[in-house]
Amino acid sequence: MTTKLRIIPLGGLGEVGKNMTLFEYGEYSLLVDAGLMFPENDMFGVDYLIPDFNYLIEKRDTLLGIVITHGHEDHTGAIRHVLAEMNAPIYATPLTRGLLEIKLRDAKLFDRANLNTIRAGDLIHLGPFAVEFFHVCHSIPDGVGLGISTPAGLIVHSGDFKFDHSPVDGWPTDYAKLAEFSGRGVLALLADSTNADKPGWTPSEAVIDSAMDHVFREAPGRILAATFASHISRIQQVANAAFRHNRKMALVGTSMIENARMAQKLGYLAVPEGLIIPTDDALKLPPKKVVIMTTGTQGEPTSILRRLSEGRNRQFDIQTNDTVVLSSNPIPGNEEGVHRTINRLLQRGAYVIYDPSAQVHVSGHASAEEMKLLIHLVKPKHVVPIHGELRHLTRHAAIAREVGIPPENTAVVENGAVIEFADGKMLVSGRVPGGYVYVDGTGVGDIGPSVMREREALGEDGFVVVNLRVNRAGQLVGKPDIISRGFIYVPEAEEMFEAARAQIAAVAARPSANLREKVEQALTDFFYSELKRRPMVFALVNPVDALD
Amino acid sequence: MTTKLRIIPLGGLGEVGKNMTLFEYGEYSLLVDAGLMFPENDMFGVDYLIPDFNYLIEKRDTLLGIVITHGHEDHTGAIRHVLAEMNAPIYATPLTRGLLEIKLRDAKLFDRANLNTIRAGDLIHLGPFAVEFFHVCHSIPDGVGLGISTPAGLIVHSGDFKFDHSPVDGWPTDYAKLAEFSGRGVLALLADSTNADKPGWTPSEAVIDSAMDHVFREAPGRILAATFASHISRIQQVANAAFRHNRKMALVGTSMIENARMAQKLGYLAVPEGLIIPTDDALKLPPKKVVIMTTGTQGEPTSILRRLSEGRNRQFDIQTNDTVVLSSNPIPGNEEGVHRTINRLLQRGAYVIYDPSAQVHVSGHASAEEMKLLIHLVKPKHVVPIHGELRHLTRHAAIAREVGIPPENTAVVENGAVIEFADGKMLVSGRVPGGYVYVDGTGVGDIGPSVMREREALGEDGFVVVNLRVNRAGQLVGKPDIISRGFIYVPEAEEMFEAARAQIAAVAARPSANLREKVEQALTDFFYSELKRRPMVFALVNPVDALD
Repeated sequence: MTTKLRIIPLGGLGEVGKNMTLFEYGEYSLLVDAGLMFPENDMFGVDYLIPDFNYLIEKRDTLLGIVITHGHEDHTGAIRHVLAEMNAPIYATPLTRGLLEIKLRDAKLFDRANLNTIRAGDLIHLGPFAVEFFHVCHSIPDGVGLGISTPAGLIVHSGDFKFDHSPVDGWPTDYAKLAEFSGRGVLALLADSTNADKPGWTPSEAVIDSAMDHVFREAPGRILAATFASHISRIQQVANAAFRHNRKMALVGTSMIENARMAQKLGYLAVPEGLIIPTDDALKLPPKKVVIMTTGTQGEPTSILRRLSEGRNRQFDIQTNDTVVLSSNPIPGNEEGVHRTINRLLQRGAYVIYDPSAQVHVSGHASAEEMKLLIHLVKPKHVVPIHGELRHLTRHAAIAREVGIPPENTAVVENGAVIEFADGKMLVSGRVPGGYVYVDGTGVGDIGPSVMREREALGEDGFVVVNLRVNRAGQLVGKPDIISRGFIYVPEAEEMFEAARAQIAAVAARPSANLREKVEQALTDFFYSELKRRPMVFALVNPVDALD
Repeated sequence: MTTKLRIIPLGGLGEVGKNMTLFEYGEYSLLVDAGLMFPENDMFGVDYLIPDFNYLIEKRDTLLGIVITHGHEDHTGAIRHVLAEMNAPIYATPLTRGLLEIKLRDAKLFDRANLNTIRAGDLIHLGPFAVEFFHVCHSIPDGVGLGISTPAGLIVHSGDFKFDHSPVDGWPTDYAKLAEFSGRGVLALLADSTNADKPGWTPSEAVIDSAMDHVFREAPGRILAATFASHISRIQQVANAAFRHNRKMALVGTSMIENARMAQKLGYLAVPEGLIIPTDDALKLPPKKVVIMTTGTQGEPTSILRRLSEGRNRQFDIQTNDTVVLSSNPIPGNEEGVHRTINRLLQRGAYVIYDPSAQVHVSGHASAEEMKLLIHLVKPKHVVPIHGELRHLTRHAAIAREVGIPPENTAVVENGAVIEFADGKMLVSGRVPGGYVYVDGTGVGDIGPSVMREREALGEDGFVVVNLRVNRAGQLVGKPDIISRGFIYVPEAEEMFEAARAQIAAVAARPSANLREKVEQALTDFFYSELKRRPMVFALVNPVDALD
């Protein structure tokens, strides 16, 4: 009897296997990535989400290692939560490791973390898993995909990838290694599905250079270029443009500064001496001599770009003739905030350059034709689309069929699905918990669906609390206090609340064992009939000895 | 001295002049459109928004008429609120009038409304305004643009438009009339900017026919086609495909049924006898003989498509091999809900066809090249981009400059701006209130920024109420009750609340005049230090005569 290889995608919100994937063989396991997810618009008050990895916690003694494919939050951001529950060596390329270090120091976990540097081309042995790292292009340098040899067969995991023929760092995806895998026979390919519904080929990062040149040529004053804090290659491109167009560059925002510093130290960001200057110095230069890089392309309320758009940034303001470049696309769900930020920057007299008005951003993920090429290079027996919502995985599976993978050899699964490989065959054999956990403040997992429903209801219609004082005879004493928030504009609602008090008095006039419930029901009905709103209503009944 | 013509865009959220525009000349005014806006994701509990038309209410005695360009909600949905404040004759084409009638009957305002039918080509005189209606293509039939002659000059208002050379109803935009206007000399063009950042030409509605044919040919079972309730031309296209492919069609959803019935009655929807059948009958036919049309393409929680995706529709369920076609694009901000709906339909075994996987939807608005053609046809002296966010208007103004309109003859303005025309010149001369008003339940405008901030805070972190009973000596009597919602999962929070009670006891141990404030502050600090959350905290102090 052969032992089975089990692959379990564990992380992702709508997306499958995006943030965490577990490989199990016999008594051993291997984790790929440990990332976080950003909350959707209806996840009230949630800071971020992490995969529900309780299944892994149960099996933590089997864990031989954690492999991180690249340095983006959605692949690294849950590492502190994983390390809080278990300790296993972490393997990452130099830049990814550097960015993990920043994160682990913040979480005061650096000292106990076992960090190991690997490089594309390396091979490590972890029990039954032999992991080969191969370079892939993505929107951050030093990303890798994985060839994982197991006794059950060879699995190729693409990581987040694109086939960029002219990447910023000059380092294309390792086609030769992919072809070599195919020579050895690949049991299954797990591949990035993010852009499965985008036809064609994702443009090279190189197209941005000419768009940036155009911006730098035309800008009549300062340039503010915004991107993600971890987007090292975009920082490189802006630095290159600054050099070409004789501008100095300043970085604003702690996380971007830290990331850039780490990338520079490790040789992943090459900037001529003296090009980057402190922001205060940059602000003193003639506007045409400056580009300021910052974060905030997602319209995040606390970001510098948002603060600039609202005139509440401390260090400097938007001025007429500034040119703001948003080098990123809105993450789905963020469109309103991003567009509002753009409109406000325009209001303040800035020029705003963003996709689609200019090609100042390209995706870091492969499109449909690249997915086909990956399949042809790797020649896998099975294809398991990962890193995408069900709609992307479905499309990716259709692409796999188009290039000759038999339908029964593709598996579209959800998080928590157990994909088993034995005797060269694939079987989706069961489910483990594969959901997610809300992180709110320092609370991890203490907020669930019921609190979320309460927050939704409070956010919709607010609440009303009435304070009833009753004497021993059960009669109302005095005028009930009413507190409300989020229900109605209180300074203009006295009439409404007086009418509510009349309702309370009417209920209280008939003595009853459950005055509280009756008042709550009467007020709920009253507010609905008056305003068609349903605030949460609470009555407090306080016995009092007729003090007045 | 010449009298001035004043044009004031009054409606829109981010968009300018989208829902309402006021024309004033001397003692007379004319209103174009009276539409509503849909709330953004951070407008908690708001049902919809209407323009702040207080300026118009003040001047209601000057109002000679209300012209409605087409039958979409964002141009008609505020009519009940306008008619509640004033009465002026309404002018609309037959279909637009029919859809208004449905709306006014719902609002019980039909009897007092003064509705007048006009047709494209008609000319009406309203005091100093001579209004000519010309046909425009859009995603609803019977739309019109306006040529408004005033003593100050001729203004052309495009309405929502596209230049579709093969529209569903075979009725292209009236190029001849536009050219004729240019012969007379056009003082200003007010034109739709929605797609100003889309290069090229918006595809014709005709492209959908072949996409639909493909869907109808391939679908192995039932087809469910979803679109907006008012999208009469899409209903027509699905009916045509059903006829070609020998399927019966059923309509589900009151608003779609009402709109389709009205359109059929007025001759804007041509369906062969017997093609449309009741849903119950359709459900009894073989799956390959049926197409069901419904609403819910925006992922709206109460829509039939959303209910189907969640398995909570009453009349029927999604079954394996159903093909669901989403013939619409997500309105910005709705992406998450739409994508979730698609993913859940896939989970239930349906095929889901949506843009960009197939061209089953096209925009109803002109793209950049069409905007250029409009300007060349009309040859206006001035261009005022309307119907778009600031970023679209800015882009549209740039397009106008590209085709020869001098920069000083374009005006990018916000809602409430007063655009004055006198002696052939344009001047942005002032501002009137141009904001919007929240409608929540039956309350119009009683919710403002402060209640919205309360709702946001409650939605983020919930609230806590503590009930303190104190005796005459100011000492705490008994254990304070604590009520919380949206803050923490109460069944597992008893320890936290016990610790909170200890905090209260510590505060109450030192007698103080402002026990309430002190307890509120202590608990706010305590919860933040424990959980990094900031629930709203309220303490009620109830004097009690030491009953226990």
